[in-house]
Amino acid sequence: MNKLEFICRQLAKASSKKYEHYVVTRIWHLLNDIDIKFVTQQYVVRPEGRALTDMYFPQLFIHIEIDELHHKNQIDADSLREADIINATGHELIRVDVTQELESLNRTIDAIVDKIRDAKAAITEFKRWDFEAEQNPATYILRGTINLNDDVAFRTMVDAANCFGKIYKEKGIWKGGVFHPKEVGKLIWFPKLYPNKEWINSISNDEDYIYEKNSIEKEAIKHIDGTKASPHTRIVFARVRSNLGDIMYRFKGEYELDYNKTNYENGLVWRRISKTVKTYSSN
Amino acid sequence: MNKLEFICRQLAKASSKKYEHYVVTRIWHLLNDIDIKFVTQQYVVRPEGRALTDMYFPQLFIHIEIDELHHKNQIDADSLREADIINATGHELIRVDVTQELESLNRTIDAIVDKIRDAKAAITEFKRWDFEAEQNPATYILRGTINLNDDVAFRTMVDAANCFGKIYKEKGIWKGGVFHPKEVGKLIWFPKLYPNKEWINSISNDEDYIYEKNSIEKEAIKHIDGTKASPHTRIVFARVRSNLGDIMYRFKGEYELDYNKTNYENGLVWRRISKTVKTYSSN
Repeated sequence: MNKLEFICRQLAKASSKKYEHYVVTRIWHLLNDIDIKFVTQQYVVRPEGRALTDMYFPQLFIHIEIDELHHKNQIDADSLREADIINATGHELIRVDVTQELESLNRTIDAIVDKIRDAKAAITEFKRWDFEAEQNPATYILRGTINLNDDVAFRTMVDAANCFGKIYKEKGIWKGGVFHPKEVGKLIWFPKLYPNKEWINSISNDEDYIYEKNSIEKEAIKHIDGTKASPHTRIVFARVRSNLGDIMYRFKGEYELDYNKTNYENGLVWRRISKTVKTYSSN
Repeated sequence: MNKLEFICRQLAKASSKKYEHYVVTRIWHLLNDIDIKFVTQQYVVRPEGRALTDMYFPQLFIHIEIDELHHKNQIDADSLREADIINATGHELIRVDVTQELESLNRTIDAIVDKIRDAKAAITEFKRWDFEAEQNPATYILRGTINLNDDVAFRTMVDAANCFGKIYKEKGIWKGGVFHPKEVGKLIWFPKLYPNKEWINSISNDEDYIYEKNSIEKEAIKHIDGTKASPHTRIVFARVRSNLGDIMYRFKGEYELDYNKTNYENGLVWRRISKTVKTYSSN
């Protein structure tokens, strides 16, 4: 998949609303700036709850939501389960009222396009959308860090792990994670942050807490005691399904065990201690 | 349906090719001229045969065809049967090669947009796209004629018939047609130009001939003899299914019986004698 194909797939995605598709394609084509990334149908959590926004510009933290009369953004619980839900607190949400005439709707969209351009111009060091680079570990090794704001999601666990000082060639060899090759006491973790097989996992809406527990009581106790006995932090790349349907590993930050909240009832409670982690070259 | 909804439905139509959708939406949004009409997925006949073009500008006689590697415009025989097939001889066909990079494809589309603008500018009396007016009999009564180049298709037989000097209020009252209220010896005819029930009808690729025959030999003979005995010409509005799935009655011109070609073998053969017909006010 290249940038053109990615854009085509985003734009062509089935739309649930009558005018959504028109608004989304018009914003993109009139914006006419291939350095700006966008995705469509982005799941978000906000203080008000979970939602689906129609178009999202990750570099600018701007969402577009198309308001149609009598339409509710139905969220299908099944697709939500594995979905790539991002926390959108503090993001800007632009609502588009489509219950207007063509000319007037076009003027509304012109104004949105101007607003997006202004938002880009206001960023001091705007990082242009480099489709090939954004999923390449080398990009982040060169940058020295992976930051939550960089909108980082890798295609494989190996790509994620390769950011930390050792080149892994095998694919899918880790059940849960791999220990950090350079920093002692850190695990690079690839959890499913939703109930799966014997695990009852979840993440808080603000993403500051991750809950991990085995559903079999005996196993849960063993696992909690074992983890408490060997203290470590976890760099988290959550396994998610992207809005194009691909499995990806999305960076969530670095978490440490919260000893106060962890117990046999709650299971392991991981608290985020950083939104940035250091990367390493393998040399 | 208003103009905005029509545009949205045209743009949102399922695309059979990966990049078609991107190209079509980009041309439309960058053209940014609501006076220019377009449809997507237009069936055409050309000297080379039947085809489906991806985007068509009826005022400008320009078609866009998106060429993808290993892709053939498969024409589904079933949908072709009732389809609104237009004769595209002499029309301009612009091919878009999408096996190129994003930037280069965008430049190609910019050039196409310029070309479409030039084509519009070259028309001395450009008639702007008036969505409400184009299906309103009053428009053509005021204009004094219906011309093949005006891209005329009405929603009902009554709308078509109302262009000729009498206001009909009932709907769907005619099996085949109605006699012209102002010109003696003319039938306003609404044929299905494809085999249907007991009729074996068709139209030639250049649309200059219409063939009409009953499939039951006895009936066919009676019908041919009867029609020859009462000479009349026919203003033809063919019943078609539009590319949005609606039934419409498309103007094809005025036809007269070709006595040389008509026989019990061929059935009735109607030859086009005019691409323009006069309209009448009901006063």
